[in-house]
Amino acid sequence: MEVDLQTVAAGIDTVWVLLCAALVFFMEGGFAFLEAGFIRAKNSMNIVMKVFADSTMGMLSYWAFGFALMYGVDRLGLFGTSGFFLGGGLDHLQFRVPVYAYWVFQAAFAIAMASIVSGAVAERMKFGPYIAYTILATALIYPVAGHWVWGSGGWLAGLGMLDFAGSAVVHAVGGWSALAAVLVLGPRTGKYNEDGSVNVLPAHNMHLAFLGTFILWFGWFGFNPGSSLSGLDLNIARIALTTNLAAAAGGTVGTLFTMWRYGKADPSMAMNGALAGLAAITAGTAFVSPAGAVVIGMVAGVLVVLAVGFFDRLKADDPVGAIAVHGVNGTWGALAVGLFAQQGGLFYGGGLDLLAVQALGVFSVSGWAFLATFLIFSLLKRAVGIRVSAREELEGLDLNEHGIPAYSGLVVTPLYDVEGLDGEQSIPGAAVEV
Amino acid sequence: MEVDLQTVAAGIDTVWVLLCAALVFFMEGGFAFLEAGFIRAKNSMNIVMKVFADSTMGMLSYWAFGFALMYGVDRLGLFGTSGFFLGGGLDHLQFRVPVYAYWVFQAAFAIAMASIVSGAVAERMKFGPYIAYTILATALIYPVAGHWVWGSGGWLAGLGMLDFAGSAVVHAVGGWSALAAVLVLGPRTGKYNEDGSVNVLPAHNMHLAFLGTFILWFGWFGFNPGSSLSGLDLNIARIALTTNLAAAAGGTVGTLFTMWRYGKADPSMAMNGALAGLAAITAGTAFVSPAGAVVIGMVAGVLVVLAVGFFDRLKADDPVGAIAVHGVNGTWGALAVGLFAQQGGLFYGGGLDLLAVQALGVFSVSGWAFLATFLIFSLLKRAVGIRVSAREELEGLDLNEHGIPAYSGLVVTPLYDVEGLDGEQSIPGAAVEV
Amino acid sequence: MEVDLQTVAAGIDTVWVLLCAALVFFMEGGFAFLEAGFIRAKNSMNIVMKVFADSTMGMLSYWAFGFALMYGVDRLGLFGTSGFFLGGGLDHLQFRVPVYAYWVFQAAFAIAMASIVSGAVAERMKFGPYIAYTILATALIYPVAGHWVWGSGGWLAGLGMLDFAGSAVVHAVGGWSALAAVLVLGPRTGKYNEDGSVNVLPAHNMHLAFLGTFILWFGWFGFNPGSSLSGLDLNIARIALTTNLAAAAGGTVGTLFTMWRYGKADPSMAMNGALAGLAAITAGTAFVSPAGAVVIGMVAGVLVVLAVGFFDRLKADDPVGAIAVHGVNGTWGALAVGLFAQQGGLFYGGGLDLLAVQALGVFSVSGWAFLATFLIFSLLKRAVGIRVSAREELEGLDLNEHGIPAYSGLVVTPLYDVEGLDGEQSIPGAAVEV
Repeated sequence: MEVDLQTVAAGIDTVWVLLCAALVFFMEGGFAFLEAGFIRAKNSMNIVMKVFADSTMGMLSYWAFGFALMYGVDRLGLFGTSGFFLGGGLDHLQFRVPVYAYWVFQAAFAIAMASIVSGAVAERMKFGPYIAYTILATALIYPVAGHWVWGSGGWLAGLGMLDFAGSAVVHAVGGWSALAAVLVLGPRTGKYNEDGSVNVLPAHNMHLAFLGTFILWFGWFGFNPGSSLSGLDLNIARIALTTNLAAAAGGTVGTLFTMWRYGKADPSMAMNGALAGLAAITAGTAFVSPAGAVVIGMVAGVLVVLAVGFFDRLKADDPVGAIAVHGVNGTWGALAVGLFAQQGGLFYGGGLDLLAVQALGVFSVSGWAFLATFLIFSLLKRAVGIRVSAREELEGLDLNEHGIPAYSGLVVTPLYDVEGLDGEQSIPGAAVEV
Repeated sequence: MEVDLQTVAAGIDTVWVLLCAALVFFMEGGFAFLEAGFIRAKNSMNIVMKVFADSTMGMLSYWAFGFALMYGVDRLGLFGTSGFFLGGGLDHLQFRVPVYAYWVFQAAFAIAMASIVSGAVAERMKFGPYIAYTILATALIYPVAGHWVWGSGGWLAGLGMLDFAGSAVVHAVGGWSALAAVLVLGPRTGKYNEDGSVNVLPAHNMHLAFLGTFILWFGWFGFNPGSSLSGLDLNIARIALTTNLAAAAGGTVGTLFTMWRYGKADPSMAMNGALAGLAAITAGTAFVSPAGAVVIGMVAGVLVVLAVGFFDRLKADDPVGAIAVHGVNGTWGALAVGLFAQQGGLFYGGGLDLLAVQALGVFSVSGWAFLATFLIFSLLKRAVGIRVSAREELEGLDLNEHGIPAYSGLVVTPLYDVEGLDGEQSIPGAAVEV
Repeated sequence: MEVDLQTVAAGIDTVWVLLCAALVFFMEGGFAFLEAGFIRAKNSMNIVMKVFADSTMGMLSYWAFGFALMYGVDRLGLFGTSGFFLGGGLDHLQFRVPVYAYWVFQAAFAIAMASIVSGAVAERMKFGPYIAYTILATALIYPVAGHWVWGSGGWLAGLGMLDFAGSAVVHAVGGWSALAAVLVLGPRTGKYNEDGSVNVLPAHNMHLAFLGTFILWFGWFGFNPGSSLSGLDLNIARIALTTNLAAAAGGTVGTLFTMWRYGKADPSMAMNGALAGLAAITAGTAFVSPAGAVVIGMVAGVLVVLAVGFFDRLKADDPVGAIAVHGVNGTWGALAVGLFAQQGGLFYGGGLDLLAVQALGVFSVSGWAFLATFLIFSLLKRAVGIRVSAREELEGLDLNEHGIPAYSGLVVTPLYDVEGLDGEQSIPGAAVEV
């Protein structure tokens, strides 16, 4: 094969974007297991099925419609109009990477936004209407917000909004959509008492949740640096650095803040602290200093703990903390660019202009996402119902929606006699189906 | 270091192939957990040990023998004859990547083929004979089939067969080997009733199965695009795109088809649908359009559901659906190239020539794999026995083959009193060993 | 963007280092789940929290102090003195990759060293003092050892010690630190009997352990090849090859050696064999032949089995085998360079010079690590205590340190009647909270 510099440059960029896309796609597994681990076992497979629906049906929907509305030829700064089914009309996209590679990377972002919502509606939302939602989220809600900020001709892009990898476009949009969804859906049965107190509905498998967290953090090595779209842009080194420092700072503060407040290091807040740091740094990762990233992550670690309590007081029941992690900290991250950006940030002498644009931008996309989700959930509620019956909620969604439990015949080693169990326990440490 | 264009080009290709190899290697974890999750707990560690034997002993076997038979200097179009222990005689391999990098990538393919078989024989095959099989599979069965299609001088390569990343060479070979294996081995005790009805032997941990599925899909970002062997071949963008669209289409159809047929979305068919789409697109990923990939994946999603039932009617007991996913859909994928290839496919005006070659090719490698495995299993059965005793099958292979259970003393939170359990449950929500 | 050869070369190297850094970072998940799986459920979340503290607090500590002591301007060959908080004074680092990318890669190594120790102290060490230790390990213990071998001006670097990716610097340092830690901490209650016999405290979830193993092996695709720091160095192909062959050989021997010795293939030794092979090849991966790598891995597979028994006879209670895997085999690997290096190794006619330097080097860094950890643990023991109370150890660290169990309300399918459980089991295969 003949090789020239342009070929080589395009090759590096394409290799970079595709491998980063793989990392971002793998985050679907991260969302699935984080959410499944944080909820009760009887509903835990259903939530994974919803994330899997994002990954499959959401991906097809983004192919058919979403990418066109997001990156097609602009109409009025509001949405794109070409490129449905990747069928042409995308020549205005002038990247060094092929548009197909760009699509794969972007599709992983679109389904991530939907998966943020899936966690918040866990343990009580029907599967069928969720399918309708994920199709609309990836076809419409996310792409329109994305067009405003990242589309060529988007109105917020025109104002100079900076959202490098999507604190606003992915995380705030996902998080505030989640809030709208839970307000329409209502809390899980038994979550809130009449006297205003809150019951803990226990996380069934913290290892699954930690697995999700490690996968998500791992995936963020693609999410943020890959958004450069070029391996020749050496700023990817800074991006990887600030991403990790913010995650570390958020996880540190989530751990230490709960040790100080409750006397015990809370694992769910350690995880959500790190994820909040990641959601927050995502906008400014390419623009802030390492120390700036640490501060952004530390603030996120506090915000997420306070926000979980705040939304519980509102009875906005979010079993996995998606609103606190992605909504609150995606918003914080978008605003933080206006404070910490080394070019134009308030703390670097840049005045209030950038901060104002960031605020306008993140409130606009969040408002759009909230309203669109509220409307869709309300229509679905009226049309087909979005909530399982009380009996189904009691028995669990796994059996009722999918016919099988997540766990079956788990092997345990009895240290005591159980009535009706005999024979097999004569093997010391034996596998006994219970 | 002095840098010139050729060095740079070789560097990009090597980085690409090695990182894709890492992704493909990780698929071993995917196979392990997919298979473990789909079977009963008491046998679940044994299947992971078998996949681990593929990864370790199979890898050494491919180093010693397999690679030479696959990529060594051709004899009669049938097998290679040089390069044992990577010890020279491989100068005819003229890639831009070092042959060592090529080996790492190919070794991950070889062990994947063996791991396809491991799932089908789960819950009743002895560990020792499995070791013998995995060594022969990676030394002989897979390499010979691979030589025919991918080796320089292979007879199917000479006929123009197109199997980009191995729908035939890896998946059909693995899947039809699996059929031969289960026919010799026989079904699990209790699977089939005398009246012809089928019992469900329940999946013990669907999260483990989903973890396997997400890892496999993630690994396919290396499996297909990496098969380009060059990061400068920008067709890798199309490959990544069609791979993901086919997976999404297969998973979508697996979900919706079971919702329509059984009234509930079946998680195992959602997963197997996506994997079937991936197995099917693997041959044509570099040659078909995005829409073609979606159709190939949709067909795979239907085929896998029908095939699982079909093989159960044959009493070919395959606990994880490996035959349906890899055998049926690897075959479908190889044939689909003859239909959907934009150069030479029937639907693009290419006539029947390519389709005929594809059919000849996939039936040849499948027939070889079926016969070789049937023979090896039959010989092993006669020589040392391949099946655990009825008592061992009842108690579980984990205890009998490995001496410990997969799970031990799992912490549970009793919500009711169990006789003989006292004291510790006075701690609310306490960890109690049961 | 203007493109020239230097830009392109820097781009390739940076892409390579950052993606390898992602793989190495993901190893934290590997450590977490390997360790959690090998211990009892009641302490399993605590160990994950400790690895998470490495990942977050350890990373910040390495940013603030560790990187400067390791790679700052040399003082006396003993430690670095510049680059605290990445705040300048690092111009002497002349890589083609940006120093920020180098930092991200190195930070993942630093936290890996700390995580090796976390496993050995599992099931009885308090969380607070562990935080102090991980901060000191990443700020001081690992960086000083690293400076000696890898820092510009380090005294062992000056002597010509070869430790390509850290058999000595990471694994021996981690493993012998772990030995010091458990000697100060003492064994778990109930591990050793007065008559010298040893009780097995069972692994609670072997799938979690295997997940950790697969993630660690996957991560080693970054750990060793990434240490080239350049994608243009085509020796990365050899590095990936020898890394995988040594892992395969170690896992093969760990499996077969236990089959021969105990009559059953031991899964924990299969895993630890592969990991021992990886720890051992890490020093020589760039310098040895494929066959040399296989021999190094085979020896590691035997050593790890013998070493686990040896340390149990010393009552050095290491629940996960970290000392045997990383201490013994990191040391073996550093020495093996002096035997198998194709340039300078004893078996290749190089005489004893290199072997002597390797021995001096690995004993020096190991001695430093052992003594520093022994001192820190002794001071922490005196100052605040490092061990949970007997009651906390009995109840489990998860509840006492973090307030919740790792698993809660796991769904099981009763096949028998349990007193007090009624109603819900009328649904066949129903999810019942126990």
